[in-house]
Amino acid sequence: MRFDAPLPLQSGASIHGYSLTYETYGALNAERSNAVLVCHALNASHHVAGVYAGQAKSEGWWDNMIGPGKPVDTDKFFVIGVNNLGSCFGSTGPMHAHPDTGAVYGANFPVVTVEDWVNAQARLLDALRIQTLAAVLGGSLGGMQALSWSLQYPDRLRHAVVVASAPSLTAENIAFNEVARRAIVTDPDFHGGNFYANGVLPKRGLRIARMIGHITYLSDDVMNEKFGRALKDAVQASATGYKYSTQDVEFQIESYLRYQGDKFAEYFDANTYLLITRALDYFDPAKPFGGDLSRALAVARAKFLLVSFTTDWRFSPKRSREMVKALLDNRREVTYAEIDAPHGHDAFLLDDARYMGVMRSYFHSIDAAVNRAGADA
Amino acid sequence: MRFDAPLPLQSGASIHGYSLTYETYGALNAERSNAVLVCHALNASHHVAGVYAGQAKSEGWWDNMIGPGKPVDTDKFFVIGVNNLGSCFGSTGPMHAHPDTGAVYGANFPVVTVEDWVNAQARLLDALRIQTLAAVLGGSLGGMQALSWSLQYPDRLRHAVVVASAPSLTAENIAFNEVARRAIVTDPDFHGGNFYANGVLPKRGLRIARMIGHITYLSDDVMNEKFGRALKDAVQASATGYKYSTQDVEFQIESYLRYQGDKFAEYFDANTYLLITRALDYFDPAKPFGGDLSRALAVARAKFLLVSFTTDWRFSPKRSREMVKALLDNRREVTYAEIDAPHGHDAFLLDDARYMGVMRSYFHSIDAAVNRAGADA
Repeated sequence: MRFDAPLPLQSGASIHGYSLTYETYGALNAERSNAVLVCHALNASHHVAGVYAGQAKSEGWWDNMIGPGKPVDTDKFFVIGVNNLGSCFGSTGPMHAHPDTGAVYGANFPVVTVEDWVNAQARLLDALRIQTLAAVLGGSLGGMQALSWSLQYPDRLRHAVVVASAPSLTAENIAFNEVARRAIVTDPDFHGGNFYANGVLPKRGLRIARMIGHITYLSDDVMNEKFGRALKDAVQASATGYKYSTQDVEFQIESYLRYQGDKFAEYFDANTYLLITRALDYFDPAKPFGGDLSRALAVARAKFLLVSFTTDWRFSPKRSREMVKALLDNRREVTYAEIDAPHGHDAFLLDDARYMGVMRSYFHSIDAAVNRAGADA
Repeated sequence: MRFDAPLPLQSGASIHGYSLTYETYGALNAERSNAVLVCHALNASHHVAGVYAGQAKSEGWWDNMIGPGKPVDTDKFFVIGVNNLGSCFGSTGPMHAHPDTGAVYGANFPVVTVEDWVNAQARLLDALRIQTLAAVLGGSLGGMQALSWSLQYPDRLRHAVVVASAPSLTAENIAFNEVARRAIVTDPDFHGGNFYANGVLPKRGLRIARMIGHITYLSDDVMNEKFGRALKDAVQASATGYKYSTQDVEFQIESYLRYQGDKFAEYFDANTYLLITRALDYFDPAKPFGGDLSRALAVARAKFLLVSFTTDWRFSPKRSREMVKALLDNRREVTYAEIDAPHGHDAFLLDDARYMGVMRSYFHSIDAAVNRAGADA
């Protein structure tokens, strides 16, 4: 969907003549009250569920959660997945041309925030003539968007579902983002963000950024379970036990990380990486309230489901509990599930019977309210 | 001290005509029984204590622990600090010339292991005519050397003091090392390790490596306490609250990390970084015993002090407890202190009254045994 009117951004800049790529699943009911907006995190898109005809391995990134008969049941809900501004999966981003000049944005793409994304999503909903969402749902950075929806448009959503998220990044979170950004920005192929014109891609930096990211998505436990100190087969079979090399791949964890880094560098845009990590850094709804999250959340009207995972050290349960407390301080209705899963931050994308059960049950109750309330009345 | 005889290395290679730089503090007693060997970690050297005359800020890296009247009291002990082979602070390393060819080692410096370092240290002690050490003491990678001493030369040390260490790296530890190595190796200025000849240094890679390292040295708690989400003064004072930039330094944690990275890249050798992180990866005394640490430690004869710090997520208390258990399985004499300090892995270098008290008390008892036993008899 193309938007010609300028969207004012939090930075003071604005963007116009931009497009948002989105997908929908299921049918909007007659009352237009069963829409669920799904917000994505760093490396994801509007393609949240289903497969594209004839395309193998094209499952949506949250296909285990969203679809017919799944916890977020597309037989009941009209689900909307939207790619955020600045991303690299369809919506207008740094690799696209400025509508007035025709020049590729590159490093000049405006810095966008969680709040800006939510405003852009709200305009999309306006165009779809959806005034009130049954729910906004997101994990990680997507959860920040769900939280921000409840603050920016408190009357336009009934439920906010915030999974594996946080009300702001910690210093350590920012630190990991900063190292990843430095790896990208100092790659000689980055060319100050205008690498498109040079026919090169800063793949070295992207690889490092992704490797760092992957370490923080997993728990120490699951890494030990999946890889431990296991060696590559060829090394394992060698007489000396190791290769005694500083640059060869010897441990399986090294192989895994290099593979993830290589794969990512082939398709992800470097400027997008900078923009999205900065949006993460900046998000801090408590900032205008002197750090008081309870005051910041006072405006929220939605009901909340928060889910965290015990081994998630990137967005730990402690951070979810901060949000729960701030919502309870405001006498909001909150459901909170802390799932004892071994998979770290990645757990929010994985199957876990208890997690799936909580989500199914919660969305079942939303369904009852929005779809069957009229029937019962 | 120069060593002409070849030192066989674990890899099957050997090195000859190398030098070890070392410092000593205090006096060796008549029985030559009061020597304490201090082993260093990644970014440290033989200069463990004291200051160099006329040089400001030249304190040894463990000067709070070692010196006259300090926990490791140089009025009582003859303390030896030695720079390891392959390091970049004086002993023979990749930046030096091969004694036969005169060519700079660069990437051809042999891969050295913890076991190799211990063997080299033992030769230094031979040359100093010290048969039995009162103690071997080390933190982190230095602690691995202390542990390895107890296995390689069980009769040459009375005590092993293993601080903030582990019997091997976890998958996550190896993963962080690997990302740091990839950052260095893929820096175009690395030139396959032979950058010396090209008149350049792979500073970009070293900066990233050091930034990653620093994150893992600190706890999430202490990072939040020291930096939190605090902004640089100029950003804080701005009307918009942020600079809305993807490349500027805005948060204080970013400024800190960049400073640490820049400083490190000025003096640390890239090949040394690869070698030392690989020595960390490889260390695993349980490997020849099918992963059974208890069997691996059966040969140890020393008495042990192990210290860990609750917020150290790099070498967590759990890893120290593994060593304690394996030693107790072998009915060894073990003292274990788990210090509830907020500083993460870095805690082993910092002042903490309980930590210092434990160390003082333990070394006091060693002093009583080695220095005063004769007097009492």
